[in-house]
Amino acid sequence: MRKSKTPTDRSGGGIAIARTIAETASTLATHSSDPVGACGIGFCGPVDFRQQKSVKSLHVGGWENISLARQLSEALGVPAIMDNNGNVGALGEAMLGAARGKENVVYMTLSTGVAGGILINGKVYRGSRNIAAELGHVKVVSNDETPFRCYCGRRGCLESVCSVGGIRAITERRMKAPLSPRELFEAANQGDMQAADVIEEITGYLARGIASVAHTLDPDVIVIGGGVARAGDVLFEPLYLALKSELMSAYDPRTLVVPAALGDDSVLIGAVALARTLEPAPTSSTHPVSR
Amino acid sequence: MRKSKTPTDRSGGGIAIARTIAETASTLATHSSDPVGACGIGFCGPVDFRQQKSVKSLHVGGWENISLARQLSEALGVPAIMDNNGNVGALGEAMLGAARGKENVVYMTLSTGVAGGILINGKVYRGSRNIAAELGHVKVVSNDETPFRCYCGRRGCLESVCSVGGIRAITERRMKAPLSPRELFEAANQGDMQAADVIEEITGYLARGIASVAHTLDPDVIVIGGGVARAGDVLFEPLYLALKSELMSAYDPRTLVVPAALGDDSVLIGAVALARTLEPAPTSSTHPVSR
Repeated sequence: MRKSKTPTDRSGGGIAIARTIAETASTLATHSSDPVGACGIGFCGPVDFRQQKSVKSLHVGGWENISLARQLSEALGVPAIMDNNGNVGALGEAMLGAARGKENVVYMTLSTGVAGGILINGKVYRGSRNIAAELGHVKVVSNDETPFRCYCGRRGCLESVCSVGGIRAITERRMKAPLSPRELFEAANQGDMQAADVIEEITGYLARGIASVAHTLDPDVIVIGGGVARAGDVLFEPLYLALKSELMSAYDPRTLVVPAALGDDSVLIGAVALARTLEPAPTSSTHPVSR
Repeated sequence: MRKSKTPTDRSGGGIAIARTIAETASTLATHSSDPVGACGIGFCGPVDFRQQKSVKSLHVGGWENISLARQLSEALGVPAIMDNNGNVGALGEAMLGAARGKENVVYMTLSTGVAGGILINGKVYRGSRNIAAELGHVKVVSNDETPFRCYCGRRGCLESVCSVGGIRAITERRMKAPLSPRELFEAANQGDMQAADVIEEITGYLARGIASVAHTLDPDVIVIGGGVARAGDVLFEPLYLALKSELMSAYDPRTLVVPAALGDDSVLIGAVALARTLEPAPTSSTHPVSR
């Protein structure tokens, strides 16, 4: 696998960044010894899959209605296809990661936001309005109980307590210190009991959200990815404990819920899987692009 | 449609009741002017669909591992197939009811328990362990907040607050009176403000559960059936209000969430739809049996 990272100029918005991506992909393709057969794209924001356009980016302005797939298809001279990061990450973990060979897969990322992707019978399930797997907006906290309003404007969403911002807010409220999730997990690893208590609160919410999804979908596996999930045991051990009291007894928390295996590459690998869904099937290697 | 209701002798357990069902079905078939082509069964309890056996009944003892479909197939001389009430009710509402012509359907019954069924692309989705759509165990109340333990042994489940028993418990706690759901809705209809407040609490929980399922599955429609749902506007109007603050703005509560249209016949009609899935396709009419 060949990878390339390129800094982008935010000021130009989606159009300028899309051009940079197309140039980077072309350069990568030119230097590849294998011919490029197709292009898959994992986009960090909602995608209108039918129109193959970005709806908006979660990070940068100016990404409304950008036909990134078409631009890359023209730049590379091969078919291209794009989907949101959640769906593409799920495909990646199912192809080569923690959900390898599984049919019914839930992928949940804990990061700036909480996003998700669902595979049913090995295929991305997009729902009736193309907005399935909005797992960040599964309800885990009572409206009365939480001081945290979600960016969606509502209360009690998983994202409002388990995203980076949500974890920061809970930590600050309870520890009176503005720790990042990384610093919180580090403190707990070094024996800080108060940090461990905060993690117990957060994993309690996370377990509740996971249980609701599990009891609805009965998936083979729920893969937890994103920056927060990289904390490892200091996150997953209290999570498994909380899951034991939230999940129906038919589920073994440790086999149902697993950390992502591909780290930053879930989406990159998933873009290859996505490209493989293009008809006609690519005859040679594929070319993933992630942003 | 010809229907027949027969009282059963609980003391004999599943084996005796299955025999009564087979006799009733045979009599019905004998008196039918159309030949019977297949038999569909909606069972009130978990079903091992692959083995075509009941796991247990939610109402009567002695239903463990009963091959009701095989018995009916032998009695009627046609292929027979069984599934649980939730899945079969979803099929019924999709065939002739409130989800007619819809592809992605959630059916939720509020009754003695809270059960569910999910159709994806028009087909029953059973999950990886055959226990998908356990919507009664979606989490809607914080563990700290609820005095209600669910029959599953856990806390915070939708079933613990929106089943008949759950509604009774909340009503008794708040009104100091042991009202049934029917009496509670009747009181609210007659202007009892305290009853209206209790319904507001209950529909708040229900809205939270519905929102979690909607944000996960993005279905065309969520059909609410079961005895409790028959309350009508006195339940649905406060539910729509609560849904407005729980659902993402992409959803219109009144088109997403609708009462079941077939009443007691959701499962009966669904059994016909289930029978139609049998291969080879039935050549004549089908013969539904519900219990």
